[in-house]
Amino acid sequence: MAKPLNIGMIGYGFMGRAHTNAYKRVADFFDLEYRPVLKAVCARSADKAKEFAAKWGYESVETDWKKLVERKDIDAIDICTPNNTHSEIALAAAAAGKMILCEKPLAMNGPEGLKMVEAVEKAKVPNMVWYNYRRVPAVTFAKQLIDEGRLGRIFHYRAKFLQDWTISADLPQGGTALWRLDVAAAGSGVSGDLLAHCIDTAIWLNGPLADLNAMTETFIKERKHNLTGKVEKVGIDDACAFMGHFKNGSLATFESTRYARGHKALYTFEINGEHASIFWDLHDLHRLQYFDHRDQGSLRGWRSIHVTDGDHPYMGKWWVPGLQIGYEHSFVHQVADFLEGLTTGKPAQPDFRNAYQTQLVLDAILDSAKSQKWVTVAAG
Amino acid sequence: MAKPLNIGMIGYGFMGRAHTNAYKRVADFFDLEYRPVLKAVCARSADKAKEFAAKWGYESVETDWKKLVERKDIDAIDICTPNNTHSEIALAAAAAGKMILCEKPLAMNGPEGLKMVEAVEKAKVPNMVWYNYRRVPAVTFAKQLIDEGRLGRIFHYRAKFLQDWTISADLPQGGTALWRLDVAAAGSGVSGDLLAHCIDTAIWLNGPLADLNAMTETFIKERKHNLTGKVEKVGIDDACAFMGHFKNGSLATFESTRYARGHKALYTFEINGEHASIFWDLHDLHRLQYFDHRDQGSLRGWRSIHVTDGDHPYMGKWWVPGLQIGYEHSFVHQVADFLEGLTTGKPAQPDFRNAYQTQLVLDAILDSAKSQKWVTVAAG
Amino acid sequence: MAKPLNIGMIGYGFMGRAHTNAYKRVADFFDLEYRPVLKAVCARSADKAKEFAAKWGYESVETDWKKLVERKDIDAIDICTPNNTHSEIALAAAAAGKMILCEKPLAMNGPEGLKMVEAVEKAKVPNMVWYNYRRVPAVTFAKQLIDEGRLGRIFHYRAKFLQDWTISADLPQGGTALWRLDVAAAGSGVSGDLLAHCIDTAIWLNGPLADLNAMTETFIKERKHNLTGKVEKVGIDDACAFMGHFKNGSLATFESTRYARGHKALYTFEINGEHASIFWDLHDLHRLQYFDHRDQGSLRGWRSIHVTDGDHPYMGKWWVPGLQIGYEHSFVHQVADFLEGLTTGKPAQPDFRNAYQTQLVLDAILDSAKSQKWVTVAAG
Amino acid sequence: MAKPLNIGMIGYGFMGRAHTNAYKRVADFFDLEYRPVLKAVCARSADKAKEFAAKWGYESVETDWKKLVERKDIDAIDICTPNNTHSEIALAAAAAGKMILCEKPLAMNGPEGLKMVEAVEKAKVPNMVWYNYRRVPAVTFAKQLIDEGRLGRIFHYRAKFLQDWTISADLPQGGTALWRLDVAAAGSGVSGDLLAHCIDTAIWLNGPLADLNAMTETFIKERKHNLTGKVEKVGIDDACAFMGHFKNGSLATFESTRYARGHKALYTFEINGEHASIFWDLHDLHRLQYFDHRDQGSLRGWRSIHVTDGDHPYMGKWWVPGLQIGYEHSFVHQVADFLEGLTTGKPAQPDFRNAYQTQLVLDAILDSAKSQKWVTVAAG
Repeated sequence: MAKPLNIGMIGYGFMGRAHTNAYKRVADFFDLEYRPVLKAVCARSADKAKEFAAKWGYESVETDWKKLVERKDIDAIDICTPNNTHSEIALAAAAAGKMILCEKPLAMNGPEGLKMVEAVEKAKVPNMVWYNYRRVPAVTFAKQLIDEGRLGRIFHYRAKFLQDWTISADLPQGGTALWRLDVAAAGSGVSGDLLAHCIDTAIWLNGPLADLNAMTETFIKERKHNLTGKVEKVGIDDACAFMGHFKNGSLATFESTRYARGHKALYTFEINGEHASIFWDLHDLHRLQYFDHRDQGSLRGWRSIHVTDGDHPYMGKWWVPGLQIGYEHSFVHQVADFLEGLTTGKPAQPDFRNAYQTQLVLDAILDSAKSQKWVTVAAG
Repeated sequence: MAKPLNIGMIGYGFMGRAHTNAYKRVADFFDLEYRPVLKAVCARSADKAKEFAAKWGYESVETDWKKLVERKDIDAIDICTPNNTHSEIALAAAAAGKMILCEKPLAMNGPEGLKMVEAVEKAKVPNMVWYNYRRVPAVTFAKQLIDEGRLGRIFHYRAKFLQDWTISADLPQGGTALWRLDVAAAGSGVSGDLLAHCIDTAIWLNGPLADLNAMTETFIKERKHNLTGKVEKVGIDDACAFMGHFKNGSLATFESTRYARGHKALYTFEINGEHASIFWDLHDLHRLQYFDHRDQGSLRGWRSIHVTDGDHPYMGKWWVPGLQIGYEHSFVHQVADFLEGLTTGKPAQPDFRNAYQTQLVLDAILDSAKSQKWVTVAAG
Repeated sequence: MAKPLNIGMIGYGFMGRAHTNAYKRVADFFDLEYRPVLKAVCARSADKAKEFAAKWGYESVETDWKKLVERKDIDAIDICTPNNTHSEIALAAAAAGKMILCEKPLAMNGPEGLKMVEAVEKAKVPNMVWYNYRRVPAVTFAKQLIDEGRLGRIFHYRAKFLQDWTISADLPQGGTALWRLDVAAAGSGVSGDLLAHCIDTAIWLNGPLADLNAMTETFIKERKHNLTGKVEKVGIDDACAFMGHFKNGSLATFESTRYARGHKALYTFEINGEHASIFWDLHDLHRLQYFDHRDQGSLRGWRSIHVTDGDHPYMGKWWVPGLQIGYEHSFVHQVADFLEGLTTGKPAQPDFRNAYQTQLVLDAILDSAKSQKWVTVAAG
Repeated sequence: MAKPLNIGMIGYGFMGRAHTNAYKRVADFFDLEYRPVLKAVCARSADKAKEFAAKWGYESVETDWKKLVERKDIDAIDICTPNNTHSEIALAAAAAGKMILCEKPLAMNGPEGLKMVEAVEKAKVPNMVWYNYRRVPAVTFAKQLIDEGRLGRIFHYRAKFLQDWTISADLPQGGTALWRLDVAAAGSGVSGDLLAHCIDTAIWLNGPLADLNAMTETFIKERKHNLTGKVEKVGIDDACAFMGHFKNGSLATFESTRYARGHKALYTFEINGEHASIFWDLHDLHRLQYFDHRDQGSLRGWRSIHVTDGDHPYMGKWWVPGLQIGYEHSFVHQVADFLEGLTTGKPAQPDFRNAYQTQLVLDAILDSAKSQKWVTVAAG
């Protein structure tokens, strides 16, 4: 019988649902030593917390996260609140000896992230950041192909994360649903929200970045603020692009925006190696495009691999070839890997220290965009 | 608080997993009066039943389906066993006053299916057949577009279901995993397994078929049989194609096979109307291709619609635009619709009578393939 | 210096332009012993003939094709007139000892075609039918792959030719531009116009058809006739589908229509073999989709081959990799192959006898559609 | 009868063929006042010149371009030689009162380009630079859509030109075939060769660039030189990326490389506007992808427009809907527009002055890559 791992979730929004779903499903598909138990959910509003608990099956509710963190019956704290709250909660949870699963990005900035890293390392608590896209089977498969050396020397890594949901100037900023547009809560705009995903994947697949040069833009300069009711200056970046170098000598070209009409969540990356190239697209996340120069010349072409076979990463746990899985499964996989890490002692990645690397790149991006200069990415 | 609906599941294979998953997840995403409870799972092997029950959370097990059917604490029987067992179980379940959710195809043939229809109608028990592809959001969306009259007069309906998993002559037939290759258990080959899906969707979207002319083929004539250990004649159809007429005057061209190298589960359909056309593909099930001739001439093109918005069917229950769902969700939707039908009194479709139409088409197909003549599809 | 080959062209419509363009361009890209010379163009209207000659550079005009056929300075007759005139012209041209390049389909029906075959064979004049799609590089490349045995045993061959230009009931039939809708001039509808292409390619790639069962439909029953000015019954088939068997045991499923909204000229074919599959689409004619089961399992996928490399058929004559050619080039290639055949003594295909096979399949199709029975394809 | 325009072509390589083909074909498809006549071709090698003239039909040859420029019977000089020769030839041709059609990029750098602009303007001779991609029908169609205001305010313009043909370290630099790898002949690498196309199109579609920040890379530092026979330092950029701002406030992200495995000539651009977005790809140049936010919400999707209808730019001159044209046609269109400009007095674009803008952007790119700073693009 699996051992229970009692989860205390803070926050109940989009990510709260995605994580909770993952906790509930993982044992149906993965055979693991630990089984998550939905012990408690915490929200400032008791009504909201109770509603969420009833819907998803949490055993109890809290309205003060500090109480949750102190509860003896909680093994792991899941932080799904806005970015500006991650640090305080994580420091407290670490001090209380809890495992921590923190929504991305880790922190508001590098220094804040470093304190969090030091806290969990000092407390020796298992910790992880929800950069879920590493666990999309096609992306994990890309990692395998790279680790097998199939691509050879890497020349280019390019990534984009394009959305179009904030184009209307009538959209307000701030508050529960729109805190991502409020710089006080989010810390940054698309760089921390979208580009952070691209950077995490890139570091995982291609190693650390050495330096970069970034540009940010805020297309809509003022928006009504939901908390103050007043029109206020927009502090976030609506778009962000950077170019730079990876330490392995390959070139980086990255871009993210919420002003690309026609794209809902178009996270794509392409890696060009000496021997082979890889392309992936979140809008068709169950496919990997692969080109291998070692194929016979006249028969070379980009292969559209439907990553649904039993020998593709994670897919043996699900259905049969040809039947695709979706977005939410990446969270299930991440929980599975986290739980397996508890058993094996090899922590699932990215842990806080690993995710801190992305924070340093984000700092470099914002520094460069402000100074208009090339910036060396700090070593993590 | 939702009312419990106690499920008794018979079978524990691929479909047993898919249905069970649907029962477990539906309440997390849909607000309904009823909530499925995993009361019992039945398998001939007690060990297999226990293992499945432990993994998925069934409260109890049975090894004799007749006992399950008689249990007072069971509200609904889910039939996930091979095709040749559907009828007997369904007749017993109806007699016992149980609701029935039966895996497709309904029966081995039309007459058998008719008895099942009559049994559930006499018993007045809610009943449904798991033609899950109706509940893929893109397919349901296609239905909406057709019902809105956007396509105008229909000229063509073409559907294919192509696989490639039985090409090897070394693959045996029969037994637990491979009963689909054994005509005694399956009744037919790709016609009942794959084409049945195409037909169900077609009738739903385009109305009944009037007549047809079919061709079947068995490429590998003999295979070792897992039950007898001997090489035996293969009785199923490896491939099946038919052409015909819908009652609305449009032309039908259908094909299915397990010998189309490169296709894992390529179920596609295309409908050509006077004003607009629609195309869908199970390999990218979250997209619908739509062409509208009423668009300005020079700007006409097939639109690739990423069916993930809140105003797309079912999608408001899941994540945010751009984040796709997968195969298994079609079952969740079907459970949700079944439960809602219990509340509204408008039974979810296809019920047995509706699914019986597909059975009549399958009969016509096999008759025509044998007689090599055009056959009128019997009225259901 | 290349030897001149004096062309006498009959007809000046769409095909007249396509052929003429091919004659004018071939020597710029192919090094051949013969060089076509635009000697004369023939049309009933002297004005039309002169206009065409002036535009394209024909040296002279004729208004009576019989005179053209008799001219001593003409080496080859190109027949670009409606289908119902092919036979008479070809018989006369053969009798006059001229080479003949005849637009497809060869004839109105098999018996007429056979007379043409016998005439050219008796006269021993080089002859060819313009089934140009064989010469699209991607299609020729498909032929190479098949001849190399890459596909193994063939299970399925499916082809479609879908258009949407005759959906409006207001479109008249007959006359110069619309003779394809007039059964008296065209002999049939989509079967002879579109399906003929599919059949020619299929026979070339997959060998002869053994038997078939066909269905035709005329959606718009009456149209105004441009020649009589009256509303007349439509005699052509608007849509035609058939299923059948190739002599190699593979299954045929073919369909053509002019009522598939959204498709301008969607000629596609797919071949499923034991080891590999091939797909091609006229709307992206410069690509070939190829799936090879012998690729490493997890890396299998359909390859999108951009058929523009120097080692792809014909492509070494044009530009550089990545730069696509178009529709008209298939005619240039066909002229090049015809001219090369004159030099090598190995006639370019399809010659009349080869194209007569397609005629026999078309006869079988129309017979079957009328009799509603399976029909054996006559041996050519 | 059309008036002859006598062409004197200098160079006989890839571009010599492409231009010559355009001259020969334009009158077959376009009704124009002027008709190009292939008067003379010039190459240093008399044999090469004669061979090319014989193949393509030039009336005469020259081995000294200065003589060609002076010939009375030449109306227009076409410069198809390496970049480092454009200026001297153009200055002489202008002085001789010849029209000039110069291959892109115009010059080795901005100052050289400016002299050429001043020379042709002083001489009042018609002049044009062969940025042929403007004349791909799908690209011209994009221009129409933008000019009609369909996109609204522009937020993003991103372009890439990716190739993979120089990855091998064994490839030498310099000489007839490989002068593009020799900085002395080419001036730069991918920036002048590939990115120049992207920039020309961008300025045309989206207006001038304001500032930018660039990065270049030379992956293979040394290559054998074909002229010296020695291993020499590689002076060109193998890859080049830049980000910047257009004067209309939109963001620019551009990249080009010859080290992107799997891409033969993947020139793509995407424009994101407030209301609509456009995407184009040279590998499928006959299509335009278009997304319009004003479409009904649930039916929004990227439209794949097959740009082959009679009302699409240039396409009414060619075949029928669905039949695609290719790369070479862009040159035919450019000749047609040049000739029409002679008649209308509205010079075809880009003329030298217009193409000089691209040169200034290229200068800014190389400056920025060297200085590692943001650079303001000089006003042209």
